Amino acid sequence: MRTNPLITLTTDFGLDDPFVGVMKGVILTVAPRAQIVDLSHGIPPHDLKEAALTIGTNYRFFPAHTVHVVVVDPGVGSERRPILVIAGRHYFIGPDNGVFSFVYEREIASLRVIHITASRFFLREESPTFQGRDVFAPVAARVARGMHFMNFGAPISDFVKSELPKPKLGRNALRGEVIHIDRFGNCMTNIRRSEIDSLARLHPAATFRPFFRRKEVPLKKFYAQAKDEALCAVINSSDYLELFVNRANAAELFRISIGDIVEMKRNA
Amino acid sequence: MRTNPLITLTTDFGLDDPFVGVMKGVILTVAPRAQIVDLSHGIPPHDLKEAALTIGTNYRFFPAHTVHVVVVDPGVGSERRPILVIAGRHYFIGPDNGVFSFVYEREIASLRVIHITASRFFLREESPTFQGRDVFAPVAARVARGMHFMNFGAPISDFVKSELPKPKLGRNALRGEVIHIDRFGNCMTNIRRSEIDSLARLHPAATFRPFFRRKEVPLKKFYAQAKDEALCAVINSSDYLELFVNRANAAELFRISIGDIVEMKRNA
Amino acid sequence: MRTNPLITLTTDFGLDDPFVGVMKGVILTVAPRAQIVDLSHGIPPHDLKEAALTIGTNYRFFPAHTVHVVVVDPGVGSERRPILVIAGRHYFIGPDNGVFSFVYEREIASLRVIHITASRFFLREESPTFQGRDVFAPVAARVARGMHFMNFGAPISDFVKSELPKPKLGRNALRGEVIHIDRFGNCMTNIRRSEIDSLARLHPAATFRPFFRRKEVPLKKFYAQAKDEALCAVINSSDYLELFVNRANAAELFRISIGDIVEMKRNA
Repeated sequence: MRTNPLITLTTDFGLDDPFVGVMKGVILTVAPRAQIVDLSHGIPPHDLKEAALTIGTNYRFFPAHTVHVVVVDPGVGSERRPILVIAGRHYFIGPDNGVFSFVYEREIASLRVIHITASRFFLREESPTFQGRDVFAPVAARVARGMHFMNFGAPISDFVKSELPKPKLGRNALRGEVIHIDRFGNCMTNIRRSEIDSLARLHPAATFRPFFRRKEVPLKKFYAQAKDEALCAVINSSDYLELFVNRANAAELFRISIGDIVEMKRNA
Repeated sequence: MRTNPLITLTTDFGLDDPFVGVMKGVILTVAPRAQIVDLSHGIPPHDLKEAALTIGTNYRFFPAHTVHVVVVDPGVGSERRPILVIAGRHYFIGPDNGVFSFVYEREIASLRVIHITASRFFLREESPTFQGRDVFAPVAARVARGMHFMNFGAPISDFVKSELPKPKLGRNALRGEVIHIDRFGNCMTNIRRSEIDSLARLHPAATFRPFFRRKEVPLKKFYAQAKDEALCAVINSSDYLELFVNRANAAELFRISIGDIVEMKRNA
Repeated sequence: MRTNPLITLTTDFGLDDPFVGVMKGVILTVAPRAQIVDLSHGIPPHDLKEAALTIGTNYRFFPAHTVHVVVVDPGVGSERRPILVIAGRHYFIGPDNGVFSFVYEREIASLRVIHITASRFFLREESPTFQGRDVFAPVAARVARGMHFMNFGAPISDFVKSELPKPKLGRNALRGEVIHIDRFGNCMTNIRRSEIDSLARLHPAATFRPFFRRKEVPLKKFYAQAKDEALCAVINSSDYLELFVNRANAAELFRISIGDIVEMKRNA
């Protein structure tokens, strides 16, 4: 067994029901020395986009060989396949419904996807309503213990990839949208630092600035630089452009929602 | 000490207050290598039935020798006794208020109940308001380390057993009720798969089908088999009959509450 | 490395976003054998008083050498310094914004405060919006592993101390206030058992009793002693005077809020 096997869990189960605790019971029965970290159980029910974003922007903060289990699965028990993804020295286990699309994109060079069929490792042969417990947990525990991925099924190449909302490049603007709002009301967009940098390289003579609802939004280096009550922007710790209000809830104050347009616009 | 002592916690403390974290501090002071799993801290305040159901249907997913601590305790500090239950190769620690009634029923063959009186192991002799921290946590840590149960007090046989809501068998129907509604709006009843099977054996010529509010509810094998927006039934992963709507919240859509009647009725 | 390094986390991050999980990923990358305990992530956003109270009244339930990380930080990324506090055989890591004021007061005899400047240990040199992940987590992991505190920066003595709300001693009364309301609606005041005892020593002939809104509140030894629906008081498990209603929510029933006055008054 690996000395310190590490498993993360990302689900839409919430923490009031015992679903998450039970998955941990199953994991620790098979891999008693595993460390289990909750990445998030607050994904809104069946919200595949939010789940894909959560795992896709955060797995890289865990050590190599971490096993990431994601259970956000509107089609549980149907023909939808359980998969094991090996990518960038991490393992990912969950349903084949596009939830790992960010991972596929970032780790395209090292990607392998296995259709999990080895039902001898499952808690039950048939799992009508709780594959997290009966399929993903026992498989994750065995991967964490070091069992080779070829034991779980055969490689596939027709796994499901979802379209991720990408910013659109126009002549004078990069047009993105709000993709996540956190507990503090900070509004993360899908515009990445690297895309802003490319824009600058393409148009060395121009300056690009964030705009929201036709108004320029001042770009700051960190939250505390902003004046109180003013809507500002920052490149956040995940390297995405984000709208915020210092010490206040931007989403509430400015009624910002997921999907709202944010642009990087060329200076007139 | 056992190599990988495992302790689960089930409380009505919620996760906003530091109660749960403090119990873990006390446990890890005594048993530094214990793994601690939160089974649920979302039991509604003082809801003994929900707590009994949560521990009673889920302890079996943990390995043998797991120590399960339950603190849902309207009578904290009163004459109500703290107990240690040994049953089916698991340990259970909590108040003697009926919270382990499901466990008693399932493990009747191997049951021992100890009245915990060994106050030398308590954090404080008298604990006015927080026995979880001062009594249950330090005792659980010692049991997890392998200390023999006879060290904590004497066996009792007059422990409190609560009546659990059981389905009633009529001439043409098994009449149960909704006992739990989860985050997804799925409505679990108290009708178990084994009871439906017995019904079939008793009346080999008849067919029994789920009914809710005088209408038949189609019985599916898994969620994704159901048409959208239709109320359906399934034998869920805990082996109980459950009402659900595929990819939607059945409890909200059909205004279903705890206690609502669900029946398995004989085909006319 | 220490055999069982223990780290606690106290933040205003909530559990829906992946912030807490990501901090754990960073910690376990550096200190794979660390145990991590969530003390609370339910501190209201930017509420420094609540955070100071939470860590200040609970760190003593953890074993010596525990590393307590607190991230409640309205000024993230500004000139506000990151600090490491060594006090009473515990370590504390967080922003220098007064969040450790209770700790300073209780551990004045053994206090050392280090300004964390050793950016070679940070995940990024500059952390615009997430110092919990980029500064506090990697430093905490190294302290937990046993790295000496002098490696992180130089001692300072001008660290920020906040005024904590203290009860006021009048001629015939000790005048305190409600400082925390828990999930059960119990209302904890800032009047400590030791202050009530001092009052008794100062006035040996008098009796002092709890008053709220000009009415005496009966003082009980534990919750179950109180009559149903009656507002009562108790010295709670943190040794503070607390208002409660047995098996009910005192804050809701009596519309009690943080800051409401509670007194220990001399018998007329």
